[in-house]
Amino acid sequence: MVSRLGKEIEISPVELASQLAKTAKINLASGSPDPKMIPVKEIQNAYSEVLDELKEKSLFYPGAGGQKELVEEIEKDYLPLLNLDKSQEDITIVTSGAQHAMELLGKYFLENDVIAVENPTFIETFNALKLRSSVVLPVDIDNQGINTKELEEILKIVKIKLLYVIPNCHNPAGVNLEESRRKELVELAEKYNFYILEDDPYRPIAGCVPKPIKSFDKFDRVIYIGSFSKILAPGLRIGFIVGNKKIVEKVSLLEQLDFSTSTINQYVVARLLKNGIIKSRMQGLYEYYSRKMKILKDSLYDKGLREFNDPKCGFFLLLDLKKDSWKVFQNAISRGLSFVPASPFFLRGGETMARLSITMANEEEIKEGVNILKESVDHTI
Amino acid sequence: MVSRLGKEIEISPVELASQLAKTAKINLASGSPDPKMIPVKEIQNAYSEVLDELKEKSLFYPGAGGQKELVEEIEKDYLPLLNLDKSQEDITIVTSGAQHAMELLGKYFLENDVIAVENPTFIETFNALKLRSSVVLPVDIDNQGINTKELEEILKIVKIKLLYVIPNCHNPAGVNLEESRRKELVELAEKYNFYILEDDPYRPIAGCVPKPIKSFDKFDRVIYIGSFSKILAPGLRIGFIVGNKKIVEKVSLLEQLDFSTSTINQYVVARLLKNGIIKSRMQGLYEYYSRKMKILKDSLYDKGLREFNDPKCGFFLLLDLKKDSWKVFQNAISRGLSFVPASPFFLRGGETMARLSITMANEEEIKEGVNILKESVDHTI
Repeated sequence: MVSRLGKEIEISPVELASQLAKTAKINLASGSPDPKMIPVKEIQNAYSEVLDELKEKSLFYPGAGGQKELVEEIEKDYLPLLNLDKSQEDITIVTSGAQHAMELLGKYFLENDVIAVENPTFIETFNALKLRSSVVLPVDIDNQGINTKELEEILKIVKIKLLYVIPNCHNPAGVNLEESRRKELVELAEKYNFYILEDDPYRPIAGCVPKPIKSFDKFDRVIYIGSFSKILAPGLRIGFIVGNKKIVEKVSLLEQLDFSTSTINQYVVARLLKNGIIKSRMQGLYEYYSRKMKILKDSLYDKGLREFNDPKCGFFLLLDLKKDSWKVFQNAISRGLSFVPASPFFLRGGETMARLSITMANEEEIKEGVNILKESVDHTI
Repeated sequence: MVSRLGKEIEISPVELASQLAKTAKINLASGSPDPKMIPVKEIQNAYSEVLDELKEKSLFYPGAGGQKELVEEIEKDYLPLLNLDKSQEDITIVTSGAQHAMELLGKYFLENDVIAVENPTFIETFNALKLRSSVVLPVDIDNQGINTKELEEILKIVKIKLLYVIPNCHNPAGVNLEESRRKELVELAEKYNFYILEDDPYRPIAGCVPKPIKSFDKFDRVIYIGSFSKILAPGLRIGFIVGNKKIVEKVSLLEQLDFSTSTINQYVVARLLKNGIIKSRMQGLYEYYSRKMKILKDSLYDKGLREFNDPKCGFFLLLDLKKDSWKVFQNAISRGLSFVPASPFFLRGGETMARLSITMANEEEIKEGVNILKESVDHTI
């Protein structure tokens, strides 16, 4: 009766855990930035200034592809901060956040195709690809990111159209993709004729990480997805795509179908780029989140919960509870702690994994949360 | 190589005409509201107040389905103003404007299905349906709106899944759908088992018009799409859907795929509903646009351009130029006037039709524009 998308869409497990998390005292579930780190005053000033200066012009319909002023600011001021080397053939378009960018790219590329993703991967963005694919091939992650050897073994057997990769502060795995593997991915994409979607929302708060995969892209194989959700605020819904003109221009036409990107919010972000607010926050946010992550790691270690990767940046730590994580979750919720059971992030395995986030809890709460987690694990059969 | 959507998407003729319109002195092409009527100061205050009161909460990720506060305001304060009788089974969700709502509904319902639309219809919203349909059946419009007799003749022969209707201040035809036909449509939908998408962005500025089709819907056949783009400003990108819970709840899950609706903009609109700004503008805007429309009609009549429908409200008048409208358009552009050649709005016919808009031009410019139009028609072979 309805489309495949209409039939197969389900409430995201992250959304579900977030809803349950609302009742919990301590929240290690959220994927949102730390509310204390949202620059409310600066954003308020930017709205006020934009409306003073541009008046009704800031409230017209948005154009497909984004407001020229923001596109220019991104290319001039932001891409260099992200270490992104844009080629002459590349263009930038604005989207309503990175999730919307993924939806546009899924819509553009896919119609029951074969794709590959990291195992685990971020279920919410990935959904926009999965629901339009016939087969999704999982490629394991280790401490250096996606296993390129395993990927090539797959590529020798199966033709894929897209590879989806989160190169920095991986959600949920916390790892960064090593530089040599970034170069390898580009070579593989050319050799086996597929495109790479590089989803990089954490880069502005990632500290010192290798250049984007896109920067090594000699073959126009990489499409880069950026976001202002972590460095500013998710509620603005502003992100962007950088990639080869032939592809990205077509993707921008698909924006005509939803015209969802607020015009005024684009001007607000352009202003915060121009006046240096965004640049000035990058290092501080990296350090802030690193401190919180260290507290989480130390607390887990103290409690004997030691089966985790070592996150270098970002919001998430992936912990092996060695017990069914949904059962532990039930126990934890009853004790006032929420986290995200991570099996939905995995295409294979992951039943005992938990995604722990450091954003909503303060330092004391992180410690207390780990105590509850330990109890919950111990009380799970 | 890419999806059907990726292959078939093209730059919208309205967008194209708008781009050409930028060089023209007089703009009778635009679909945007009159810039002078955008309440910049009130919107600026609303941003400031929302950020003062809610602070970072107004900048979190949006939830699929929309912020509770806005949904409640729409149901309590706005739907009554729109004369929309919501049934117990109906729910409301927020979207990033009406265009986004159409994209979500197209995504939910369609996969190479058969649909019917008014002839002419609004090409931009319609595109989200067309690119997912196998067959689109045009049903002619007269001065009372869609011809329900013609529709039933079609329904006797072909099964359709959806009918797309713009009931008030039709874009581009300018007409309002008569009340008895509204009731008929609901009966036909039930009898022939299809759904009606009622796209009603102009209602808040439409003056006295019959109740929405949705209000006559005893069978859960109508999905209503509303917008704040005409009554406030298009750049906020806030609209909504009202319809049966079983359908609309699923549609709201599809919002997880793009998460494109700005959180803060939702709070801004909620505030402008709550403080009465929206209600206070409705009658004034209707009268303002009616005055401008009268000037357009009188000017056309004076110049002997008399082959048009009689728009009761909204922004558009559909004029038969009796000559190829693209050729007249070329002539007009060279003389400093832009309008939209209307053939792309038609599934059959329309080659000599022009869509004239009253929003961007002031009264003098409307008169001058009609002079140029007359010259352009006379100089077209």
